[in-house]
Amino acid sequence: MSPDYIHGYSDREHARLVDQATTLSDLLHAGTRYPAGSRVLEAGCGVGAQTVTLARNSPEARFTCVDVSPDSLAAARERARAASLSNVSFEVADLFALPFPEESFDHVFVCFVLEHLRRPGEALAALRTRLRPGGTLTVIEGDHGSTFFHPDDPDARRAVDCLVTLQARAGGNALIGRQLKPLLDGAGLRDVAVSPRLVYVDSSRPEWVEGFTLNTFTAMVEGVRRPALAAGLVDEATWERGVARLRRAAGADGVFCYTFFKGVGIR
Amino acid sequence: MSPDYIHGYSDREHARLVDQATTLSDLLHAGTRYPAGSRVLEAGCGVGAQTVTLARNSPEARFTCVDVSPDSLAAARERARAASLSNVSFEVADLFALPFPEESFDHVFVCFVLEHLRRPGEALAALRTRLRPGGTLTVIEGDHGSTFFHPDDPDARRAVDCLVTLQARAGGNALIGRQLKPLLDGAGLRDVAVSPRLVYVDSSRPEWVEGFTLNTFTAMVEGVRRPALAAGLVDEATWERGVARLRRAAGADGVFCYTFFKGVGIR
Repeated sequence: MSPDYIHGYSDREHARLVDQATTLSDLLHAGTRYPAGSRVLEAGCGVGAQTVTLARNSPEARFTCVDVSPDSLAAARERARAASLSNVSFEVADLFALPFPEESFDHVFVCFVLEHLRRPGEALAALRTRLRPGGTLTVIEGDHGSTFFHPDDPDARRAVDCLVTLQARAGGNALIGRQLKPLLDGAGLRDVAVSPRLVYVDSSRPEWVEGFTLNTFTAMVEGVRRPALAAGLVDEATWERGVARLRRAAGADGVFCYTFFKGVGIR
Repeated sequence: MSPDYIHGYSDREHARLVDQATTLSDLLHAGTRYPAGSRVLEAGCGVGAQTVTLARNSPEARFTCVDVSPDSLAAARERARAASLSNVSFEVADLFALPFPEESFDHVFVCFVLEHLRRPGEALAALRTRLRPGGTLTVIEGDHGSTFFHPDDPDARRAVDCLVTLQARAGGNALIGRQLKPLLDGAGLRDVAVSPRLVYVDSSRPEWVEGFTLNTFTAMVEGVRRPALAAGLVDEATWERGVARLRRAAGADGVFCYTFFKGVGIR
């Protein structure tokens, strides 16, 4: 984060925080804390899935959360209200046409947004200009190509690949996590540091089996059943088998691995 | 390690150690320290690649290092001599017919061995019997299926797959890292805890680009060129292109990821 902020900088502190993670939010937000009084832009906040964690972890920072969708913002506002957040304001805005002057923010935070954009590098370059010199830009993304599991299975891998293909056809990139370093470098950020956040799930972590392997990842794959079949990416029998085999990774002798990436660069 | 040993137990300490890793050995051996006077069996020490680190990290433990190959053991002995190790002895022995009575050791350490065995579960079960009750069994393995990189490339992935296929045909398993939890559970160990150790390499870590991406992983892939072509797993042009693309991951905008796994169980 900013050079004048003591926590959340060092790799050691980061590792300690990651290791204590009991939820996915803990894992992703480990190391992201903003100092009192700092102005933080959350770009592409969507329905506010990250906003509550973000604002709670840095209660004395002031967050401006923007999204291009008024409907999503309404949901985010409601979520913030329910969480009694007092350090957050919302605004409809396009990443590529932000209604803020240059150098308006001390820090920028972007989570699960770049994966949906046709021009993620340009988005980062635009966000960079809203930072004061010395301010940080933090990006978090997943990478579906980092997925592997036991028992391994070609149909299960094929089901995951459908997700990657569909996202690419929609102009996005489900393999963007691994690319954060070159993207941030290319957008003119300096001192870019990327840390992988591997989610490892076996039967010794039943809450992660349920919460991540089944209800997050497998549910996301199952969510593209219709478009995957409609696009002819896979036949129905293969799809059903693949999803069933993916669920096997949540069994007593199953293992599931997925890696998120967090990159931080400085203007 | 043993319940009476203070360092190297907690996840937090482990994370701290992993994070400070400056070499692959640091990363793999983080958290593995044995108390003074403990008797440790290194099973399948080969040419002693891990032995020096192991013995130096626990200078007051006594290591018995066995391997089935007298030639490998000769090299291991020479390496231990060159490192002036005084707490290590070597012995030719087969994992499945160990010349030690039951409960001879306080701890057992096995690194990069199971991947080559047809019956890894049986090997673990045999090793377990050599442990005193309460002693630990530590296993480290890689997993070639955890490999991903930027720029992604199908031919590069195919070259990596050749390694996996050839190892399977030789009776081994290059995807064994992800399986440590069920393997250790199945061999009767209790309180099995597996920790992934992801190697993330980008241009901010030039020593890892050189030492890991190129000289460890890519070199290993290149090492199976002849058998991969001879087995008809890939044609020569695809192979050359794949290896070249793998090398691209070591470029200025490249990224390379690989995950090792360490499992510890208790008898």
